[in-house]
Amino acid sequence: MISTKLTELLGIDHPVVCAPMGSVSGGRLAAAVTRAGGLGLVGVSYGDAAFIDEHVARAAEAGGVWGVGCVMFTFDTRPGLWDKVLGYAPPVIALSFGDADQVRKYVVSAADAGSHVVVQVHDPEQARVAVQAGASVLVAQGAEAGGHHASLATLPLVPAVLDATRGAVPVVAAGGVADGRGLAAALALGADGVMMGTRFAATEESLATTGFKSHLVSAHTADTVDTRAFDVVRGIPWDESYRARSIGNDFTRTWTGRDAELAARRAEVEPRWTAAVARDDTSQRAMFAGEVLDLIQDIQPAAQVVRDIVAGAQDVLAGLARRTGAPAA
Amino acid sequence: MISTKLTELLGIDHPVVCAPMGSVSGGRLAAAVTRAGGLGLVGVSYGDAAFIDEHVARAAEAGGVWGVGCVMFTFDTRPGLWDKVLGYAPPVIALSFGDADQVRKYVVSAADAGSHVVVQVHDPEQARVAVQAGASVLVAQGAEAGGHHASLATLPLVPAVLDATRGAVPVVAAGGVADGRGLAAALALGADGVMMGTRFAATEESLATTGFKSHLVSAHTADTVDTRAFDVVRGIPWDESYRARSIGNDFTRTWTGRDAELAARRAEVEPRWTAAVARDDTSQRAMFAGEVLDLIQDIQPAAQVVRDIVAGAQDVLAGLARRTGAPAA
Repeated sequence: MISTKLTELLGIDHPVVCAPMGSVSGGRLAAAVTRAGGLGLVGVSYGDAAFIDEHVARAAEAGGVWGVGCVMFTFDTRPGLWDKVLGYAPPVIALSFGDADQVRKYVVSAADAGSHVVVQVHDPEQARVAVQAGASVLVAQGAEAGGHHASLATLPLVPAVLDATRGAVPVVAAGGVADGRGLAAALALGADGVMMGTRFAATEESLATTGFKSHLVSAHTADTVDTRAFDVVRGIPWDESYRARSIGNDFTRTWTGRDAELAARRAEVEPRWTAAVARDDTSQRAMFAGEVLDLIQDIQPAAQVVRDIVAGAQDVLAGLARRTGAPAA
Repeated sequence: MISTKLTELLGIDHPVVCAPMGSVSGGRLAAAVTRAGGLGLVGVSYGDAAFIDEHVARAAEAGGVWGVGCVMFTFDTRPGLWDKVLGYAPPVIALSFGDADQVRKYVVSAADAGSHVVVQVHDPEQARVAVQAGASVLVAQGAEAGGHHASLATLPLVPAVLDATRGAVPVVAAGGVADGRGLAAALALGADGVMMGTRFAATEESLATTGFKSHLVSAHTADTVDTRAFDVVRGIPWDESYRARSIGNDFTRTWTGRDAELAARRAEVEPRWTAAVARDDTSQRAMFAGEVLDLIQDIQPAAQVVRDIVAGAQDVLAGLARRTGAPAA
């Protein structure tokens, strides 16, 4: 058991959060992480009403401290879906990727619904905005994260966010963490926990397809690429300041850096691409993954991931306390 | 005192290394870091014979465990300078930025001269090559570093390098570290120490100019930019896989991303640029700095930096040992 401001605020056992990955973090994964003592989050950003009714309902039924993660800008055009999310009364709502006005709007709405509100930030200025808006937890996400991210790295970002917000709220480190060493390092930086995506994508409970999971085990960090190609082919209006790290494949090699051409030829490319994704063609599909790929060798039960990272961090910190002569009480 | 495999191997008090920054890490800074119990390295990569005779001599006269840092490819065309470096019998030679053949050649040469050989790497494959070549220490440098760097971030890179080399040699974390939190985090990742550049550039003893030091204090991480413009205007044949992080100014805004045009117009631009640098014109000069800028608020004596980071890391680790119930001996 590692007690932090995060575990105390939320009433969870371990400072380990499952990232709310769209199309990957379903109700079964969220429930498994929550049941193991961490915080499970369902990713509903691209999900429709049926997805929410299946996966949010499953997490809610499992009970405990669970939540949903929402990419803010994707709800602006779908207010009915936001109300549907709130209708499940998630104990935690995690918000990401919105401008300052969206942060203020969704933080207030989520807090009014009685949820703890987690806001993901990528620089100290976004952190100040989120705290002023009323966030109860910050996620400081570094550029080594899988999927969408900004440009600053986790190691210097976490202390900068803590300094900028003067410890007003717990800060969770995201990006670059996959094992007990990473959790121990995040705590050393002053973070109150970690959010992991790629490590939880590589679990039995994740919605990642068979082909994607196979690549999570076999691919290396050097195989990842930052790309906007999947956003363009899907027609999702991501702000250009955010790129998405994915395991490189034929699709990224063909289209990365050719955003305008892909947008222009979308009517031709998109149907073929969607059909390929439907048959789990890993030469075409998005396989969002972070720079931790070199640290992932297997598909595990989510509960095992939680147990291992906590035990690993405790081992690391006990060893360091002995070696550095730190006077433990 | 924090004892690690690095401090034991080199016989130093603290696992803190001053990066051998070209035109910044002179003999006075290296001697100050060594005297404070860390490892001071003189950066001789762009220096001529006069620079070496002034600065390496000064570090050598101060004695203790000191060293030099050499960008390998810059010595290939200047064998006389490499022999001059070896002539000072540095206890440590730190090598960076060479291909596998250069790594093998310079590691053997430096080891034959009786030096401990430190090799900087940016991915697990480079780490394996360096260990096979006979490196006695690795520096795992992440993309958040100032100056030249590759693409992977420190937080996931350090454990991946440790796993790839199975703990064969001590590993030093570089990039993103500026204070005790960063040192504690690096140790938690399994590193045996840290190398810091930007933090030591912002010391009284560094060769950074008055204008550059002023910007190190006032600029923010968000003001930094990755650029090849300074390499192109100087006509230094850096491999295109390495970019250099610098505090943005008029020169970077004008020329970043226009490498071919700058190269073509170098005869016209370079003399003006060199004259501007000579008068410390911060709108034009290179001001290499890392993503730790948000953590740097002042110019300090180098010894104070060493003392503060060690004491800070000890405080962090003692606090964590208490909070996590780690059974310290």
